[in-house]
Amino acid sequence: MKYDLIIIGGGPAGITAGIYAARQKLKTLLITKGFGGQISIKAVDIENYPGFERISAADLVKNFENHFRKFDIETKIDSVIKIEKKDNFFYVLTKDNNKFEAKTIIIASGAERRSLKIPGEKEFIGRGVSYCAICDGPMFSNKNVAVIGGGDAGFETAIALSKWAKKIYILEYSSKINADLENQERVKKTEKIEIITNIILKEIKGEQFVNSIIYQDRQEQENKILEVGGVFVEIGVIPTTCFVGNLVDFNEKCEIKINHQTGATKTPGLFAAGDVTETKNKQIVIAAGEGAKSALSAYEYLQKV
Amino acid sequence: MKYDLIIIGGGPAGITAGIYAARQKLKTLLITKGFGGQISIKAVDIENYPGFERISAADLVKNFENHFRKFDIETKIDSVIKIEKKDNFFYVLTKDNNKFEAKTIIIASGAERRSLKIPGEKEFIGRGVSYCAICDGPMFSNKNVAVIGGGDAGFETAIALSKWAKKIYILEYSSKINADLENQERVKKTEKIEIITNIILKEIKGEQFVNSIIYQDRQEQENKILEVGGVFVEIGVIPTTCFVGNLVDFNEKCEIKINHQTGATKTPGLFAAGDVTETKNKQIVIAAGEGAKSALSAYEYLQKV
Repeated sequence: MKYDLIIIGGGPAGITAGIYAARQKLKTLLITKGFGGQISIKAVDIENYPGFERISAADLVKNFENHFRKFDIETKIDSVIKIEKKDNFFYVLTKDNNKFEAKTIIIASGAERRSLKIPGEKEFIGRGVSYCAICDGPMFSNKNVAVIGGGDAGFETAIALSKWAKKIYILEYSSKINADLENQERVKKTEKIEIITNIILKEIKGEQFVNSIIYQDRQEQENKILEVGGVFVEIGVIPTTCFVGNLVDFNEKCEIKINHQTGATKTPGLFAAGDVTETKNKQIVIAAGEGAKSALSAYEYLQKV
Repeated sequence: MKYDLIIIGGGPAGITAGIYAARQKLKTLLITKGFGGQISIKAVDIENYPGFERISAADLVKNFENHFRKFDIETKIDSVIKIEKKDNFFYVLTKDNNKFEAKTIIIASGAERRSLKIPGEKEFIGRGVSYCAICDGPMFSNKNVAVIGGGDAGFETAIALSKWAKKIYILEYSSKINADLENQERVKKTEKIEIITNIILKEIKGEQFVNSIIYQDRQEQENKILEVGGVFVEIGVIPTTCFVGNLVDFNEKCEIKINHQTGATKTPGLFAAGDVTETKNKQIVIAAGEGAKSALSAYEYLQKV
């Protein structure tokens, strides 16, 4: 089966790319593990996707999916394991042993937050455990919170949270801080942030909502309790790109390098959009916008080959 | 009155920038002539803003405006006539003689389509007269349509329309075509497009809906009638930027040059988003995404000054 376009991923970028591709009458296949991407794991309401003052993550995913399904776009619930390019055609291999062929590809496979993998983390997602300060910060007004991770992401998260939270602890495994000096100075200025290094996080505890964390001081080998109402995990993300080989270039975070005006990668006909790319702010509306761009770029490319 | 941020424009880019700025607790002022930008002049339903399968332009504007007004953002219905920068502060002067001061500015003042200024144009907007083939093309299945303008935009519009329309006429004032060769070849290939040069468009006629146009052959000095169900006006846009002086660089279309990852212009603290910029595809969801980027970039900038 030959397609004009294969879209990999069913989050905001992939869905929007699909809507735009369908409107351009491209013969399109979308391959995804499921719809919604990172929205589908959000347990809090979404208040920053323009047009919806406040909508549950589940409802926004449903709206996106219904909008997408209004068009006649083939969809496969499957995972891509490899993309190859031969003679101007892309060959896509999947986990379920399907093989598809297309003239263009949009990679919109997103990213997964690295998780702590400790007791309490999964249980309290949306009830105190968060992976996004911009999204969930306002919920933590006047609370004490912990940020896990002493890199730039952790420091920036702590600074962002300082507008809302009463007190913020940054907890870092190593004995030294990796955030840049500028971020370190800004953290000092807030006077609300305390940095605790050289620790191992052991457990997140709570009842209805998170109320504390337990960590081990690596030097004293002693368990300590910190009373916090929120835990922000900032130990990095893993872009979902293992299948793409050397058809694209990556930045130091393993995000796909793109032309930000078009979504083009270094391989002609291969585009990328959303959180899998080096796009700076990982937001639903930004990913959707980049998805639209990449589909219109794929369409333009197809007019010329 | 000193603000962290002044946003100029109340279309999708400005509104989204406002939502994001408010969530980052920036002291923000939005100055606009009205809400909705170019959506507010669209008379057809919108089917490509993800999350809404089909929504009237008026309802989408209302949703955007309600979402924006949920936040505590000061708004002035006014027009900016000048921006100056002195000692790290921006000074904004308006038509109503207001003077505002801010640390950062987001220009999201959009663009206006150049119009034909002939009888019938205004009357049939949304009833056959369109300024956007991507938006409105599917409504013209199996109809004859005219595209006014023989530049690249006109040719690309005609090619886009060839998927839906039965026959497309491109009408151009000058005796020679300005579109690039590639576009000219692609137009030839469709076998559906006829080019008529050296004409003056006189009038758009119809009853409920457009049914014909009258043009004058400039050589024969004779009026002719063309039966068409749609007229696409592609004689250029005018980005609304006269107030910005030399604080930004422009491309050849008078669009503001930006860093596409951040929305930054050449002046630190001055950002731009949406149709006023050189962003390639002028779409609601793309403008909204760029608005979010610019607000988060302004926020980041403010942390460092």
